[in-house]
Amino acid sequence: MSTIVTKFGGTSLADASQFRKIKDIIEANPDRKYVVASAPGKRFSEDIKVTDLLLRCYELAAAGQSFDAEFKAIQERFQTIINELHVEFPLQEEMEIIRKNMEEDPQQEYIASRGEYLNSRILSAYLGFTFVDPEWCVCFNDNGELDELMTQRTMAASLRPLTNAVIAGFYGSDRSGKIRTFSRGGSDITGSLAARAIEADLYENWTDVSGLLAADPRIVDSPKSVKYLSYRELRTLSYMGASVLHSDAVHPVSDLGIPINIKNTNHPEDPGTMIVRELPKNETKYPVVGVAGRKGMSVIQIEKVMVSDDAGFTAIILDILKALHLPFEHCLTGIDSVTLIIRSDLLAPYQQKLFDEITEQLHPDFLGLKENLSMIAVIGEKATEVSNANIQVLSALAKAGIELSTINQGAGKLNLLIGVPEECYEDAIRTIYGTIDHML
Amino acid sequence: MSTIVTKFGGTSLADASQFRKIKDIIEANPDRKYVVASAPGKRFSEDIKVTDLLLRCYELAAAGQSFDAEFKAIQERFQTIINELHVEFPLQEEMEIIRKNMEEDPQQEYIASRGEYLNSRILSAYLGFTFVDPEWCVCFNDNGELDELMTQRTMAASLRPLTNAVIAGFYGSDRSGKIRTFSRGGSDITGSLAARAIEADLYENWTDVSGLLAADPRIVDSPKSVKYLSYRELRTLSYMGASVLHSDAVHPVSDLGIPINIKNTNHPEDPGTMIVRELPKNETKYPVVGVAGRKGMSVIQIEKVMVSDDAGFTAIILDILKALHLPFEHCLTGIDSVTLIIRSDLLAPYQQKLFDEITEQLHPDFLGLKENLSMIAVIGEKATEVSNANIQVLSALAKAGIELSTINQGAGKLNLLIGVPEECYEDAIRTIYGTIDHML
Repeated sequence: MSTIVTKFGGTSLADASQFRKIKDIIEANPDRKYVVASAPGKRFSEDIKVTDLLLRCYELAAAGQSFDAEFKAIQERFQTIINELHVEFPLQEEMEIIRKNMEEDPQQEYIASRGEYLNSRILSAYLGFTFVDPEWCVCFNDNGELDELMTQRTMAASLRPLTNAVIAGFYGSDRSGKIRTFSRGGSDITGSLAARAIEADLYENWTDVSGLLAADPRIVDSPKSVKYLSYRELRTLSYMGASVLHSDAVHPVSDLGIPINIKNTNHPEDPGTMIVRELPKNETKYPVVGVAGRKGMSVIQIEKVMVSDDAGFTAIILDILKALHLPFEHCLTGIDSVTLIIRSDLLAPYQQKLFDEITEQLHPDFLGLKENLSMIAVIGEKATEVSNANIQVLSALAKAGIELSTINQGAGKLNLLIGVPEECYEDAIRTIYGTIDHML
Repeated sequence: MSTIVTKFGGTSLADASQFRKIKDIIEANPDRKYVVASAPGKRFSEDIKVTDLLLRCYELAAAGQSFDAEFKAIQERFQTIINELHVEFPLQEEMEIIRKNMEEDPQQEYIASRGEYLNSRILSAYLGFTFVDPEWCVCFNDNGELDELMTQRTMAASLRPLTNAVIAGFYGSDRSGKIRTFSRGGSDITGSLAARAIEADLYENWTDVSGLLAADPRIVDSPKSVKYLSYRELRTLSYMGASVLHSDAVHPVSDLGIPINIKNTNHPEDPGTMIVRELPKNETKYPVVGVAGRKGMSVIQIEKVMVSDDAGFTAIILDILKALHLPFEHCLTGIDSVTLIIRSDLLAPYQQKLFDEITEQLHPDFLGLKENLSMIAVIGEKATEVSNANIQVLSALAKAGIELSTINQGAGKLNLLIGVPEECYEDAIRTIYGTIDHML
């Protein structure tokens, strides 16, 4: 028998009908012993998330104004769920405690966390699972950073004696006992920490999409979802803008190699996206994972004869960037040339200073700036090995007449990075998706 | 009327019949007013260059041994040329002076330079041109480095009053009057300095090949010669191993944009290779210049999640290399990864230290080394713009089943750099040449 940690996102817990779907999902597999719950999300696109209502209450309370209307709306949302599910839950009592704390000493993180607290308590009552308050087992330092080692131990201590449990996501407490939260979307991290603590066999992350999409649906018509990818591939996709999992949620499970399965609460029959530590050596089914990209890049070209012979040249450039606290996205050195790709918004305030420093310290033969570049990543650790997908992509772009400003594929072969002018970005993404579609 | 500086290499001046070809070349165009001459080179493949004979004499003289036999062979080579050309030249007298200097105070650079000195004097007598001794106008510092500014002025002063002249290549003198030489092949530099000093319209460099070859003839069967390329393209080709011009010979003329024409003394009708400062904007005739490469490379892959977000990571790696005085060839950073390409022979003694330092300072998630890599450059500033030659090349390599370990094309677009395993090197070069052949 194996153990699964299942985390449900806000839309999966938005109302009573969603709670029912969750119950079906949990009961369909007895391995789903530990459940991490978010606060109720949107029921329809104009709806307001409970956490946003709570944060609005905090703002009003902190300003000494009345938050009655918002507070009532929150209570009503929970009350409706309770009524429709016919569960026993002392909501009135709980709401009174929260109101009292807000009036006496409004603390933003405490208030923000109450959506998860209440929702998890209701879900635990509905499922008949034990409620575990992360206040006691997700441990932060007093500066608000997660104490991973302590959390690992306390969470294991909390969960191991229980055959099943619902854990509230998103928050914990610091050493002084104050409630602390992760950044938004942080319930993903709670789930990952729980999976690591009990050394789960699988971490299921239930959302409202059938997995990670292989391309941006605003650009590509109904892109396929990614079926199978590695943590590294996921990280690259996320870095380039695809979002489905909090970026800090991978690290806890990746240490133990626990797979993550992104699933759709509304379509539990869909296989979703499976994220694993390593692609099996002879796995060749999905050579390409997807395509993603970012606009708003600037490219700086620095040329000087004999650069390559001089270990110091590029180092000096990067030291100048470091001194300006100006991060770069990519750096590629050729023969006598260094290409830097930097986010335009970060570069703007430092550009003159950077160019002055480079000119003064290095006397380059050429120093040029080109703006409005976008960077596109074609992601797939096996793309080169299996199908030469990367080369097919480059050929397709060339055939489509899209200018390839930079091309970069390191020895890790995780992804091919292509710079194209911003005005070609959407075209390039569509062209690439058209090329890789049949490999997905 | 324009002015051409013509430089003739050793094989172009190896014997009397070559001298006659030179005279025909000079007389065919009255713009060829200034001639730079090398020492007599090989007449056949087992022959010994006069400069090598002179250096052997020096070694013997310095060891206090007799150098009579070698000295006599040198004198005979010059005497044969003089006799066959029927020129007046006091060879016996000149040889006595050299012998006396060698016996009294054998100085290596002085002795090495006498081949150019004698050959140029004979050529000037044969052509009826004034002889200019670089002892007076090619100026070195006392540490043996060229004093460019001083040379520029003295050479202009020497040449401007003359309607034509033969200048000896390869040497000059330092401030104490001692003879100093460039490194071997340095007559190319003398010619370039002369062209700059008189602001020539063209620098002709006459050799025994009809220009720069577009690929290594040991790998590709009779590759075409490059017809037209920029200084930058030349530098890249040279960096990757193609040699036809001393690497320091470009810089003097490149400042003024004087074109260099590589010509074949034995086939003066061949157009040879024309090297220019900049390719004309709408010149699309020769998008690709050639392919060249180097073996003996190692590739180091360093991975760490969130590298891209941290400006310091790559800088630290390069600082470690700098501290070890270990130059790298190329560096490309992706997402969470840095790829370094380093010459294996340079890396070997420092590899352990480098890996220790990287591990200690950066705690990477992955640190790997792959040896026996070769780097191939497909060179052509217009390759992307005009013909997507680079993409065609990548497609051809992929189709041929050649593993592409790294791919790198910076914003300068001067060249595409491809890493392939050494065992695929020759195959890759041939595949690439087959793809670009029709563009040359």
